[in-house]
Amino acid sequence: MEQLKVFLDESEIPRQWYNILADMPSPMSPPLHPGTGQPVGPDDLAPVFPMNLIEQEVTTERWIDIPGEVLEKYLLWRPTPLYRARNFEKLLDAPVQIYYKNEGVSPPGSHKPNTAVAQAYYNKAFGIERLSTETGAGQWGSALSMACQMFGLECRVFMVRGSYEQNPYRRMMMMTWGANCVPSPSNLTEAGKKILADDPDSPGSLGIAISEAIEDAVADEKARYSLGSVLNHVLLHQTIVGLEAQKQLEQIGVYPDVVLGCAGGGSNFAGICLPYVRDKVHGKDIAIVAAEPTSCPTMTRGPFAYDFGDTAMTTPLLPMYTLGHDFVPAPIHAGGLRYHGMAPILSHLVKEEVIEARAFDQIETFSAGVQWARAEGFISAPETNHAIAAVVQEAQRAKEEGKEKVMLFNWSGHGLVDLAAYDAFLSGKLTQYELPEEEIQRALRAIEKFPKP
Amino acid sequence: MEQLKVFLDESEIPRQWYNILADMPSPMSPPLHPGTGQPVGPDDLAPVFPMNLIEQEVTTERWIDIPGEVLEKYLLWRPTPLYRARNFEKLLDAPVQIYYKNEGVSPPGSHKPNTAVAQAYYNKAFGIERLSTETGAGQWGSALSMACQMFGLECRVFMVRGSYEQNPYRRMMMMTWGANCVPSPSNLTEAGKKILADDPDSPGSLGIAISEAIEDAVADEKARYSLGSVLNHVLLHQTIVGLEAQKQLEQIGVYPDVVLGCAGGGSNFAGICLPYVRDKVHGKDIAIVAAEPTSCPTMTRGPFAYDFGDTAMTTPLLPMYTLGHDFVPAPIHAGGLRYHGMAPILSHLVKEEVIEARAFDQIETFSAGVQWARAEGFISAPETNHAIAAVVQEAQRAKEEGKEKVMLFNWSGHGLVDLAAYDAFLSGKLTQYELPEEEIQRALRAIEKFPKP
Repeated sequence: MEQLKVFLDESEIPRQWYNILADMPSPMSPPLHPGTGQPVGPDDLAPVFPMNLIEQEVTTERWIDIPGEVLEKYLLWRPTPLYRARNFEKLLDAPVQIYYKNEGVSPPGSHKPNTAVAQAYYNKAFGIERLSTETGAGQWGSALSMACQMFGLECRVFMVRGSYEQNPYRRMMMMTWGANCVPSPSNLTEAGKKILADDPDSPGSLGIAISEAIEDAVADEKARYSLGSVLNHVLLHQTIVGLEAQKQLEQIGVYPDVVLGCAGGGSNFAGICLPYVRDKVHGKDIAIVAAEPTSCPTMTRGPFAYDFGDTAMTTPLLPMYTLGHDFVPAPIHAGGLRYHGMAPILSHLVKEEVIEARAFDQIETFSAGVQWARAEGFISAPETNHAIAAVVQEAQRAKEEGKEKVMLFNWSGHGLVDLAAYDAFLSGKLTQYELPEEEIQRALRAIEKFPKP
Repeated sequence: MEQLKVFLDESEIPRQWYNILADMPSPMSPPLHPGTGQPVGPDDLAPVFPMNLIEQEVTTERWIDIPGEVLEKYLLWRPTPLYRARNFEKLLDAPVQIYYKNEGVSPPGSHKPNTAVAQAYYNKAFGIERLSTETGAGQWGSALSMACQMFGLECRVFMVRGSYEQNPYRRMMMMTWGANCVPSPSNLTEAGKKILADDPDSPGSLGIAISEAIEDAVADEKARYSLGSVLNHVLLHQTIVGLEAQKQLEQIGVYPDVVLGCAGGGSNFAGICLPYVRDKVHGKDIAIVAAEPTSCPTMTRGPFAYDFGDTAMTTPLLPMYTLGHDFVPAPIHAGGLRYHGMAPILSHLVKEEVIEARAFDQIETFSAGVQWARAEGFISAPETNHAIAAVVQEAQRAKEEGKEKVMLFNWSGHGLVDLAAYDAFLSGKLTQYELPEEEIQRALRAIEKFPKP
């Protein structure tokens, strides 16, 4: 029998996260205070995040020890298996080997708990009693709900009202783990009340939900805010994925030619690729490819600029690829990829041409995802289907070039709670979104006056 | 760090299924032809099942080789991890060790593909081109859809209309794997047409769906029928679960005092317990406990009798615990446990007092399931929560007796597509079903005239 999976023993789980800030090919621009235009310091962030995570956000230490309490929770589903997609390889009939990390085996079904568990731990250790966050489709909110339950923290999740109503399973998951899931806009915050006063039927947006979650956290000194992507410490926690993959591939004597993942805010992609970015910065010949949606083409069509991380302009100005903080992406099913910006670390690496970005239309991604499900069995999250579409494209190129290629990608989550999207695709109801250049230009005008990184 | 999981290498996957018929403590009564009252022979079953599976149904060989093509598909998710539920142990604060097999890691999220893949393979090998089956909540239908796709068979699933409408995610899963999922009653069969003529809005029932699937299969010589539980060959295929568990527990030097599982038709419970039943029959001191719902208390309140396997009286008469083939269980969320009968093999072992059965109310089971989810992370299928309730009960007994106990149970599936049930429980909307004795007696009158086993 041909081997399909590589497991690591629990004793082989990595004991440290990898911090790419120790190996960046050139210095990054700092986040700026929007009022003063000066770099933000730890004290500016103290009402929002606990100091131990703020320290992690800025440290340039290469290796950060994973606390024992976090490792203990990781072991509930980690190390995750590394798979070889032999059936999909046969289907593609190209000279490729395709390996993937199955992050869908976690209780909420995605990579998100890798940082949720760590953030809950550090907040608890800092004496915090409650976390507040926002969620769109619900992957992040459900992961943080589980993590808070594990460390005895209260959890409040502001969920975009449209998703709250359309995807009830995710909020039920949060309730099952004991969290308080609130449709946003809500009457719990001034930001929410203001929106509701103007439009009592507002479906909400991720931008509004972020504003509510931050306001809710800052107003309560025993509470802090938690973010599931974009920030340096979030990417740091996700490197456990790539570090495990490196160990697993070493076990079978394989080194990839291409590392791929889908990218919305960037956390799952960073998780698999940053340990390989380190190799590349030190001279290794390897391609690193991020897949994003054509309807929200941050890296492929946006400029590298300073912009707010949220629509309501409450965060520091971050140096990143952006479509403008008031850009509203089309309602594609990959809710986790509908973000106007991109993690500053990944943005910097794209600008430095260490990472390459490509955009895929959602019909192309679901077509790849259905082929995948029929060959490999597992049904992928709509976000993950973007990575699979990139894998298909790479395989076609390998075939055309007659060149053998080893690929590694992050199968970031399963799609069992996103089946309505498959239904829409299979019954021909999915929309292809052509994004007019004017729409991007309009959104970008909102950031013209900001400093340039 | 304390170990939580035991993996088996792919090379250690069992190469044979275990057949309990070689080790039964006493002879079983045969299935009877309802017309003649004589034991059914292979030819009676030939229009319904392929001959290679009929042979497996009756063989008394102890070990049956697993075909290479089946093993290859098993490896997509098998061997499944054996977990120790340390966090749940701490919560229960009892002198127990709790181990479980995580069958939720399969693509459809349950143990069902263990037999679906085998049945699809044998049908394909026999030259069959299409399988027909029924499904209630959808676990079985989705598993068979995936298996048929893997072996290039067409698949038609008659899904009880009530579930088809209330649980759209399962039918979307079937569609994604390329199956044709039809709400039952349908206009595709005479049985369906007859029901629809009387009641165009009929919500359907498992009994009607079975009748439609059998009629559909028998009418097409290139098609056969497939059943997801109850029959000997189905239980045989599921023994891979218990055989793996035995290897994994041996690896850490553990032998269980109690083996538990939930039982509807009996397949997941048989899967984990039959290899241990073999040990017990050969003198080992071990308790084997089946958990069923109080609303459908087949083994705890029904007689051991000959009865039809389906409501429409199309199957042979099976010797089993039964509540009568026209018993209609209350609409509990554990759809997979709403079956009036029980696998003849398990029924025989209950009658011989090798296996003990206990009944649990659904509120008790969800209470156990929510505690589990908050301690262990994973959200269980409503069926699986019955096994967890039995584990809680055993732990309480161990505490009262001051006796150490090692438990092993089958965590037969996750509940991510059943979250509406958790929502009902958490918002206090779940009903406790008290089943009046008269209701059972009424249903049993329908089988009074059958021969006694």
